[in-house]
Amino acid sequence: MTKSIDFYFDFISPFGYFAALEIDDLCARHGRETAWHSMLLGVSVMKVMGLKPLLDTPLKGDYIRREFARGVRRRGLTLKRQPGDTMMDPRPCGRAFHWVKQHQPGREKALARQLLHAYWVDGQDLGSSVAAAKAAASAGFDCAALQTAIESAEAGALLRAAVDASLKRGVFGSPTVMVDGEPFWGVETFGQVEAWLATGGW
Amino acid sequence: MTKSIDFYFDFISPFGYFAALEIDDLCARHGRETAWHSMLLGVSVMKVMGLKPLLDTPLKGDYIRREFARGVRRRGLTLKRQPGDTMMDPRPCGRAFHWVKQHQPGREKALARQLLHAYWVDGQDLGSSVAAAKAAASAGFDCAALQTAIESAEAGALLRAAVDASLKRGVFGSPTVMVDGEPFWGVETFGQVEAWLATGGW
Repeated sequence: MTKSIDFYFDFISPFGYFAALEIDDLCARHGRETAWHSMLLGVSVMKVMGLKPLLDTPLKGDYIRREFARGVRRRGLTLKRQPGDTMMDPRPCGRAFHWVKQHQPGREKALARQLLHAYWVDGQDLGSSVAAAKAAASAGFDCAALQTAIESAEAGALLRAAVDASLKRGVFGSPTVMVDGEPFWGVETFGQVEAWLATGGW
Repeated sequence: MTKSIDFYFDFISPFGYFAALEIDDLCARHGRETAWHSMLLGVSVMKVMGLKPLLDTPLKGDYIRREFARGVRRRGLTLKRQPGDTMMDPRPCGRAFHWVKQHQPGREKALARQLLHAYWVDGQDLGSSVAAAKAAASAGFDCAALQTAIESAEAGALLRAAVDASLKRGVFGSPTVMVDGEPFWGVETFGQVEAWLATGGW
């Protein structure tokens, strides 16, 4: 069994969404599995790095909107959510993700995919435990049980621990991919990730 | 004659340096020429965007150093300059570049390549008119005349006008490539630039 490739993302990150659509296929082409980790840009970017939100940054905000639209067209996606829209609170999704990872290991990717789809494709606001649990139901999760789990102190602690662990590894952006300890930030580095996996690195 | 592709860079930008090594070949593969424009990250990033220098940003600074080292290894380069080293004042190089572009059009790329080589490969500090002019001499420029030019009010005005023009086009980072009005930021987007040129865009 090969060592997993770690994939870090935030549910509200547009390029994290693109990455989530591609990372498993990319790694599978090189016989590698992935482990998914949700993190919080609000902690890494705003609290630790001391930066303003990306979309509120002059010049860069406009570029990001344009680059996102270009990425949507390139991938042939139809999304109801745009980066400029009001963002949801990503913590209920993060809590759900880490609770499922802990208690139903192996199902957290299916949960994440469903939540990302509900947010980006369907444009739902999953910023409450009710909404996140309801969206998860379509992927076969028990809605009431998951809502209770999201609201639990344990889920909050699991998310905090995961965010702390991501920061300790130096992860600050979404997406970030760790290949055998080597960090790659941004979906635009996926060409580099693929070359690294194909050649064994440099 | 095809419309030129605009390439924006700052002399002190490590990824701008990588991009300068590759952009002309990339565009030539698709029958396109390039126009080079030097800009100043100190103006776009610090004054307009209100951000701290990249290398002083927690977490991101460490990542950038690592990504740069990886880029150096991948390209088989041997550089005396590292992103963590004391940075030169990029204005003398920028003034020289825009003065040559104005008065000896067609020679500005050769000048830029020589200055980038002197800074990154040889590790020279080109932060004075003397040093920048001296480094340019190896590429066939008249050292004394170029030093006088760099110190002229005209060169200062040309650089300021170029920086203003880059900001008006929304350019904030180095490298940025403008393909028929479409901006691509970062050397990691070069795969996307190549695909755009090959397909005509999406």
